[in-house]
Amino acid sequence: MSRLIKVAVDAMGGDNAPAEIVKGAVKALGASEELFIFLVGDETRIRQVLKKANYPQDRLEVVPASEQIEMSEHPVNAIRRKKDSSMVVAMRLVKDGKADAFLSAGNSGAVLVGGIAIIGKLRGIDRTPFGAMVPCAKGATLLLDSGANVDVRASHLCQFARLGTLYLKHAVGIADPTVGIMNIGAEEEKGNALVQEAIPLLKAEEGIHFIGSVEARDIPQSAADIVVCDGFAGNIFLKTYEGTSKLLMHIIKSMLVSSFKMKLGALLIKGGLKQTLAKFDAAEHGGAPLLGCKELVIKCHGNATAKEIKNACMQCLSYVKNDVTGIIRSNMGTAAQKEE
Amino acid sequence: MSRLIKVAVDAMGGDNAPAEIVKGAVKALGASEELFIFLVGDETRIRQVLKKANYPQDRLEVVPASEQIEMSEHPVNAIRRKKDSSMVVAMRLVKDGKADAFLSAGNSGAVLVGGIAIIGKLRGIDRTPFGAMVPCAKGATLLLDSGANVDVRASHLCQFARLGTLYLKHAVGIADPTVGIMNIGAEEEKGNALVQEAIPLLKAEEGIHFIGSVEARDIPQSAADIVVCDGFAGNIFLKTYEGTSKLLMHIIKSMLVSSFKMKLGALLIKGGLKQTLAKFDAAEHGGAPLLGCKELVIKCHGNATAKEIKNACMQCLSYVKNDVTGIIRSNMGTAAQKEE
Repeated sequence: MSRLIKVAVDAMGGDNAPAEIVKGAVKALGASEELFIFLVGDETRIRQVLKKANYPQDRLEVVPASEQIEMSEHPVNAIRRKKDSSMVVAMRLVKDGKADAFLSAGNSGAVLVGGIAIIGKLRGIDRTPFGAMVPCAKGATLLLDSGANVDVRASHLCQFARLGTLYLKHAVGIADPTVGIMNIGAEEEKGNALVQEAIPLLKAEEGIHFIGSVEARDIPQSAADIVVCDGFAGNIFLKTYEGTSKLLMHIIKSMLVSSFKMKLGALLIKGGLKQTLAKFDAAEHGGAPLLGCKELVIKCHGNATAKEIKNACMQCLSYVKNDVTGIIRSNMGTAAQKEE
Repeated sequence: MSRLIKVAVDAMGGDNAPAEIVKGAVKALGASEELFIFLVGDETRIRQVLKKANYPQDRLEVVPASEQIEMSEHPVNAIRRKKDSSMVVAMRLVKDGKADAFLSAGNSGAVLVGGIAIIGKLRGIDRTPFGAMVPCAKGATLLLDSGANVDVRASHLCQFARLGTLYLKHAVGIADPTVGIMNIGAEEEKGNALVQEAIPLLKAEEGIHFIGSVEARDIPQSAADIVVCDGFAGNIFLKTYEGTSKLLMHIIKSMLVSSFKMKLGALLIKGGLKQTLAKFDAAEHGGAPLLGCKELVIKCHGNATAKEIKNACMQCLSYVKNDVTGIIRSNMGTAAQKEE
């Protein structure tokens, strides 16, 4: 058997922690014999969930941590002060070479700050973007930056495009991923100052397949494999996309139980509806990697369920097995150092 | 009878022009005896549609224009060169005092450029934002800027907040509209440089009811009556919101005809679904006013149907009758001139 890929999981991060996190980890262990998982956090609570689960004891280790970082805490202060938090302890496992990847559904800002301060950026990387896998009509689109860097320069968008290309090629297995820049129109003259400056740079960038502007409304229809943008616009897009889908589904579901006739209709369409909506389930695609760190850092949704955690663990497996960090290191080392 | 409110309608603008534009104008004339409409464009084609319609001949005038501005044309060039386009001719009717308001479903950029160059900005207004009425769980939210100014300063967002407040109070009749700033989190430290600079200014701004940051995903749930942002982020939000709703509806509709069982279910839920979705129909709320011009300029969706055009005509009626331009002029004159 090849060596085990070890994932340090922040078991206390997210709205459904620790139960869903622990369950997700157990599911992942069942899905691959190459995985080893550290569950970091409140040992008593983690063991309570594990008690009811069936898992390979030799591939799971509970690592105690007495504190946890709340969703609303100030990221920098939290990482600095809560040395014994589940997030910091899990990141240290990666930093110290005991684990290959870090995974959390907790405070995004803290994942970003800790990812850079504890695990560290690769040499030559100016900014580390969150790359969210956005469920689309055909598979998913990698949106980066989806929220880590709210103010960026045009050259950063070029780095995002290269990072995204390497990630999709080597961690996801897409041969020649297309790259678009998020814009408010398809015409050349459209866009704000950042977009206007970035378009010619992206055209000139080597090693990426740039296809020009992509309108936000076309992203769900799989307009490009990768969409680059600043983290503010990216986060606006992502939250609107997720929020709108959720709201519409909520409204339709309420409608379907509002009368006897509706309930009868609902019975008939239930299976089809479920199948249709599964395509748009973000959980299918795991979490958002913080690209450009020395080891893999993955942020899952705050409301992640066991399914998303399991898929994120599998994402770690593929990333580490294919040595994507090594590939990024050797491809981004020099060109990325043009500025800063 | 009080004096007629005259609306100059660009009959050739938009994907469904002139048929839907003309039909919408006719519907509006039927809904209010206080309206007079100029239909500007290709006389033959306009009259072809009018032939089948029943309308008050003394309150409708066809104004011929030999050219039209295409959706993809460069706005500045189009406005400068196509002097006899339906858009320019209709704008001139307003400029010359023959009409009180201008309405088009055509090229947004051209509406913006023409609105400023032909109709003109009010004294003291730095930037004129498009104020889209976004359908929400409870009514609609005024999003400004929804796309006119892609790069703005914090002081512009304050002007948008004041313009939006005056518009909702006096044209729509909302007593004390709340104002939020579009952001990627509710916490004080969240946001890009623009948002960070704007928050204290908005807190200090008089005459508005500022409630702080509003996350993009909460806008559809009616988090604020007015949401201010730069036109790039605003347009990303708007297009994502509209695009996602459209895509989901398309997918659900395809599903509902995919088998006999589905079709049977669809029959049962059809009425409820239609009623539920009507709430999210942007057409209900008319078009987006370009706020801060000397006379009302309204931009409807490119794919506007007769219903939206009719509602936009009614929007003109309310705006002009309540002298919203006069109110904006007297409220924004001095304070707005702090810079530029």
